[in-house]
Amino acid sequence: MSTQGLLAPEIIKKKRDGGELSNDEIRFMIDGFVRGTVPDYQMSAWLMAVLFQGMNDVETWTLTDLMMRSGRVLDFSHLGVAVDKHSTGGVGDKTSLILAPIAAAAGVPVPMIAGRGLGHTGGTIDKLESIPGFSCEISIAEFEKQVASLGLALIGQTGEICPADKRIYALRDVTATVESLPLICASIMSKKMAEGIQGLVLDVKWGSGAFMKTKERAEELARRLCQIGRAGGKDVVALVTDMNQPLGRFIGNSLEIEECLGILRREPVRGRALSEFHDCEELSVILAGVMIWLGKKAATARDGVAQAREILESGAAARKFEELVKTQGGRIEALPKAVVTGEVLAKEAGFVSSIETEQVGYAALVMGAGRRAASEKIEPMAGIECLVRLGDSVEKGQPLYRLYGPTPDYRVGHEDAIERLTRATRIESAARDKSLQSRESNALIAMGIGVEL
Amino acid sequence: MSTQGLLAPEIIKKKRDGGELSNDEIRFMIDGFVRGTVPDYQMSAWLMAVLFQGMNDVETWTLTDLMMRSGRVLDFSHLGVAVDKHSTGGVGDKTSLILAPIAAAAGVPVPMIAGRGLGHTGGTIDKLESIPGFSCEISIAEFEKQVASLGLALIGQTGEICPADKRIYALRDVTATVESLPLICASIMSKKMAEGIQGLVLDVKWGSGAFMKTKERAEELARRLCQIGRAGGKDVVALVTDMNQPLGRFIGNSLEIEECLGILRREPVRGRALSEFHDCEELSVILAGVMIWLGKKAATARDGVAQAREILESGAAARKFEELVKTQGGRIEALPKAVVTGEVLAKEAGFVSSIETEQVGYAALVMGAGRRAASEKIEPMAGIECLVRLGDSVEKGQPLYRLYGPTPDYRVGHEDAIERLTRATRIESAARDKSLQSRESNALIAMGIGVEL
Repeated sequence: MSTQGLLAPEIIKKKRDGGELSNDEIRFMIDGFVRGTVPDYQMSAWLMAVLFQGMNDVETWTLTDLMMRSGRVLDFSHLGVAVDKHSTGGVGDKTSLILAPIAAAAGVPVPMIAGRGLGHTGGTIDKLESIPGFSCEISIAEFEKQVASLGLALIGQTGEICPADKRIYALRDVTATVESLPLICASIMSKKMAEGIQGLVLDVKWGSGAFMKTKERAEELARRLCQIGRAGGKDVVALVTDMNQPLGRFIGNSLEIEECLGILRREPVRGRALSEFHDCEELSVILAGVMIWLGKKAATARDGVAQAREILESGAAARKFEELVKTQGGRIEALPKAVVTGEVLAKEAGFVSSIETEQVGYAALVMGAGRRAASEKIEPMAGIECLVRLGDSVEKGQPLYRLYGPTPDYRVGHEDAIERLTRATRIESAARDKSLQSRESNALIAMGIGVEL
Repeated sequence: MSTQGLLAPEIIKKKRDGGELSNDEIRFMIDGFVRGTVPDYQMSAWLMAVLFQGMNDVETWTLTDLMMRSGRVLDFSHLGVAVDKHSTGGVGDKTSLILAPIAAAAGVPVPMIAGRGLGHTGGTIDKLESIPGFSCEISIAEFEKQVASLGLALIGQTGEICPADKRIYALRDVTATVESLPLICASIMSKKMAEGIQGLVLDVKWGSGAFMKTKERAEELARRLCQIGRAGGKDVVALVTDMNQPLGRFIGNSLEIEECLGILRREPVRGRALSEFHDCEELSVILAGVMIWLGKKAATARDGVAQAREILESGAAARKFEELVKTQGGRIEALPKAVVTGEVLAKEAGFVSSIETEQVGYAALVMGAGRRAASEKIEPMAGIECLVRLGDSVEKGQPLYRLYGPTPDYRVGHEDAIERLTRATRIESAARDKSLQSRESNALIAMGIGVEL
């Protein structure tokens, strides 16, 4: 059976009614969408039907493979064992910018194709583009050359690699079809498998700021991702990590670059000691360590982590990051400095018992740090500083968050953000803080799949 | 709270996750779609989410009201109590063309905005347009004038009335989002409520030729439609009627006009006695009678039905129909006469135990009597004559259906139609006919909601 005569509405209906799609049917949708014969409104209805009805392992692998083959597939095997990392997305997650220079400094080639902000989470590309002059739109030829010379290159999605994923990702972002396990798996793995890597470490997040709200769903995602990667012949390791509060202290593009620079250069950030960024630094070091191990520069993951910590503390990672920025046209010294535009105060005294981290992400989005539609521009300096963490005690009137923008009178989404942040941050009286102990004891890393740490 | 700051992806997500949408959220989607600020790909994802998660009564009413207000809302209260009828669609259902003249002849103003055929069901507008010169594309001003002068006017959907419904329906048609109860309810009721009527009779069909395959689902649809209409201050009555075989004997546009003319003029149709069209006549008279009652020209529904029968038998309805055709430019005497192009014969002897009526509708469609996409042209003379009814005994080789077209050698969809009709008509041996008795005893009208007949 060919794709001749298949009608998009029939394929949408079949999936809507819980049917299992054939290779030809999935190909009809994906190839048709890329060629323009399946319009975006049919694709988005199909994506929503997939979100509700799911896809089995064979359908998901078929989708991944079709998306990967929709463009060029790179190969870096002549440079050694190339490795990349992928995070399923969180709020304030800027670990890529720290771990990539660490792994590259350890001699592991890191060809990283990164994404833009998606829904309530930020994107690595948006963060890098807040550095004046930094270009993520280099050609594939330059990308390959830079991985060979610098050991590290970072570009955004290009029309040449996984064009199907690029277009589908943009559509999912604006149609509430992001949170689908098979779509997430196919999107992640098609891009990563086309990058020309041999090893991949996955940071699968769970919690109030993650796409997966429970540890169980994150573990299921981690297992499916590993399965697809291994079907594609890759060495894949997954860590399931905690995203029940923002990672680090800053959310927003230029602000997150400042935070990364502090960690890399071992300097305070806006007057705050490095120890206040411990969660972000620790996760970056662990992920980098696993990359070093997968890249065959350490005998065990534990050795890799020790090496990663050493590289970070030596300043070698900072120098690698500065080289990266310079090579891709950026002037790190010209990074714009956001200014404070407002504060969110605690309405009562008590302990911070929970944070609706997704709403914190949306607060940054409505201020301009993210986008509601793929076509929207972002404001690089818009963002939020988190002044409290889960379990902290607060006084009534104490600042919980600071809002930032390009000028002190910047007011985009101001009221909306304040309302969201206030509602997102639950403060309970000390008498009811029994549950806090268990929350605080949440390990940063809940489990590793395929790795002993 | 205004619609400011609402994000389409959040609204899609809220419905996707089973939430109840506020008036503002539904308004954001509908008004935004009409104005172009909510693109079609977000609308189609939202429609699919609504299909999966449903809408409660308040949400459905809000959607209906917003769609109604997206265009002009007419008012015929100065002419008396205007009444219309709506059918959820069947095969061979031409009752509108009989009941509208009856109700108008009884003095009830009938401002009827009708649809075109889509899928397996025919459309009143397509049928009327098979009459040479007949125009359904008169202006709203002419429509209002004609209802005042003739008591009856029939037009197709216009961009001026319910533009939101027109655009949403076109999108649902190509995104497999037609079969959603709240979307069906809002589409039907928004159009009817904008017509300027006070009374509405609903013919909600169930069975193998209806959208609702079971009586229970049809009753649920009928109840919801009545509730919405009453929320809008209208007098609404619903009949749940049987659509397990075609209504009357002919399917196809000019053929159905011939059948209506026979019933209205009390004449045989192509050599067949009026008694063979009893089901179609009876349903038309009952629906017209309810309209007369709702239009305050009869004290009870029963009186209305008696009056309707009298008007039909007197020839007054035939004259009203002829006036209607003439006023809208049609030349009834020039109605093209379809000719026989083939027959479908019984492959075995026995009793007709069931008819897949939807497939009979599709058989007419593939011959050119209907359309798969809104842009397709139809052939007015293409059609089918049903020679047997449920429970009839047949001999092997006896004709079950006759096929019609503009010329004897017309062959569009010929083989496909013959195959569909053969498969659609189940013939069982006499030994297994126990179930037939109960099938035959199916009342034409299963239940009335809000009316005693």
